[in-house]
Amino acid sequence: MNELPQRVSMREVGPRDGLQSEDPVPTAAKVELIDALSRTGVRRIEAVSFVHPRAIPQMADADDVWRQVTVAPDVTYSALVPNVRGAQRALAAGFTDLEVVVSASDTHNRANVNRSTDESVGELAELAELVHAGGATLQLIVSTAWGCPYEGDVSVEQVLRVARGGAAAGVDSLAYGDTTGMATPTRVTRLVGETRSALPGMPLGLHFHNTRGTGLANVYAALQLGVDDFDASVGGLGGCPYAPGASGNIASEELVYMLEDMGIDTGVDLEALIEVAGLAERLMGRQLPSQVLRAGPRTRTTAPTASA
Amino acid sequence: MNELPQRVSMREVGPRDGLQSEDPVPTAAKVELIDALSRTGVRRIEAVSFVHPRAIPQMADADDVWRQVTVAPDVTYSALVPNVRGAQRALAAGFTDLEVVVSASDTHNRANVNRSTDESVGELAELAELVHAGGATLQLIVSTAWGCPYEGDVSVEQVLRVARGGAAAGVDSLAYGDTTGMATPTRVTRLVGETRSALPGMPLGLHFHNTRGTGLANVYAALQLGVDDFDASVGGLGGCPYAPGASGNIASEELVYMLEDMGIDTGVDLEALIEVAGLAERLMGRQLPSQVLRAGPRTRTTAPTASA
Repeated sequence: MNELPQRVSMREVGPRDGLQSEDPVPTAAKVELIDALSRTGVRRIEAVSFVHPRAIPQMADADDVWRQVTVAPDVTYSALVPNVRGAQRALAAGFTDLEVVVSASDTHNRANVNRSTDESVGELAELAELVHAGGATLQLIVSTAWGCPYEGDVSVEQVLRVARGGAAAGVDSLAYGDTTGMATPTRVTRLVGETRSALPGMPLGLHFHNTRGTGLANVYAALQLGVDDFDASVGGLGGCPYAPGASGNIASEELVYMLEDMGIDTGVDLEALIEVAGLAERLMGRQLPSQVLRAGPRTRTTAPTASA
Repeated sequence: MNELPQRVSMREVGPRDGLQSEDPVPTAAKVELIDALSRTGVRRIEAVSFVHPRAIPQMADADDVWRQVTVAPDVTYSALVPNVRGAQRALAAGFTDLEVVVSASDTHNRANVNRSTDESVGELAELAELVHAGGATLQLIVSTAWGCPYEGDVSVEQVLRVARGGAAAGVDSLAYGDTTGMATPTRVTRLVGETRSALPGMPLGLHFHNTRGTGLANVYAALQLGVDDFDASVGGLGGCPYAPGASGNIASEELVYMLEDMGIDTGVDLEALIEVAGLAERLMGRQLPSQVLRAGPRTRTTAPTASA
């Protein structure tokens, strides 16, 4: 049997990636959610995105959100930036962990930022230099890493091309995003394995969506290759813009539940996290897709019913 | 990397295990569902349960359902029987594949059939003899194999005790049921491994519920141990009686989607199965938990949206 990591570092992305795909919520609700998350033992929170308000109105209040958050000393907060302008805003706001997204699929990248994948990769060196000069780190998130909703399959080579471009540009770490939930375990095993060969030593996090139900199976495949860095979203906040009603990111409490039951330390208090998932449901005013939020952890037993 | 099976035999349990946990539906709806499933390439369907109508009113029309089903020559239909009386009814109706459930958890077994686990195991030899004399086979399904909603943990030894009892009584195959979705991959690996050691050569199928989101991760863990026999329920029909709104069985179309994408042959036409999941939703009049039903297979691409 393959050896699994002893601990996993989860990045909570509900406040950014999750809320970006939901109906807009008030600034105060975002602040409440981030502050509640910071009290669960989660050590990394993707808090905001410094994108143009016209592009993603849900994130227009990034500066306000960040000003109102009660910064916890043991939590690292990160910000997504689409370009140099966004990075300048994030650095000015005091962020030390920045992320930039480039899609491995040309069609998807053009739809998002109106340039080809190669053009976006070509801008990474300037961005990395700016971020490093500001004393911060830059993570390259390669999106549509296991498939594109427009193009279908995305080859391992397409993904590695972007990853190599990022490494050459000086990014500090990589993450692969399964943007619309098209990964399955064998695809995960293949891409992670080839990345390890192509870019040994490069830190790699994985970002799965549960759009087709395979999210935790993909996590289990990655664990067996030693991956110990996963994104997840409280309550399963977020959705898939191309499939109404479909699930978004894997739910943080499902990830923590599975890992802790497998003896893998996450540092997160599961019951506290489930409470925050309940808060997220109330803030959104809709039922979120998390199963563990409905059923509770396996330690939550019930009284026997009458015999049949 | 562990080698995975080249093909998997899925047993569709929506008409029995799924519908048993749903509000009662008319006989005609059950017949329509079973007949639609038999045209998808599914080769095994758990069709009915011959339990006492007072125990499970949802299954009171088992004989009527079975009389009206259009039996497909390439499909094996199975029936669940609680005892000798049920087995006699099933054999009289012409079933050749019978299943009996014993819970590894004493409290759960008492709540279901008003006797201890050992008492139920003690009745298996008579049942197996009757079934074999009728020219049929008997599978022992060990429920609460990874945990009990009343007792919590269920030890591997408790499960093996029931499994060994079944083997000694002459049952033809085993299945382990994760009745309320308490399994995680390491637990699956442990129990399957110890069962293989304890009962080499005994056919073993697995029956997962997605109550806590780990269903397909558990399947992936089992595949790596060579398990090639899984239950699933179309649309994810069914639920958890102890957690309102929680998911039931793993959804058949999610299982087929994942396996086929991993290069494992199921013989099932995924698009046809998704159609039947849609039918199941219409028959039940509620949204079912299947993600693949919402999002479609990964081959279903969409047109690019306007650039942001």
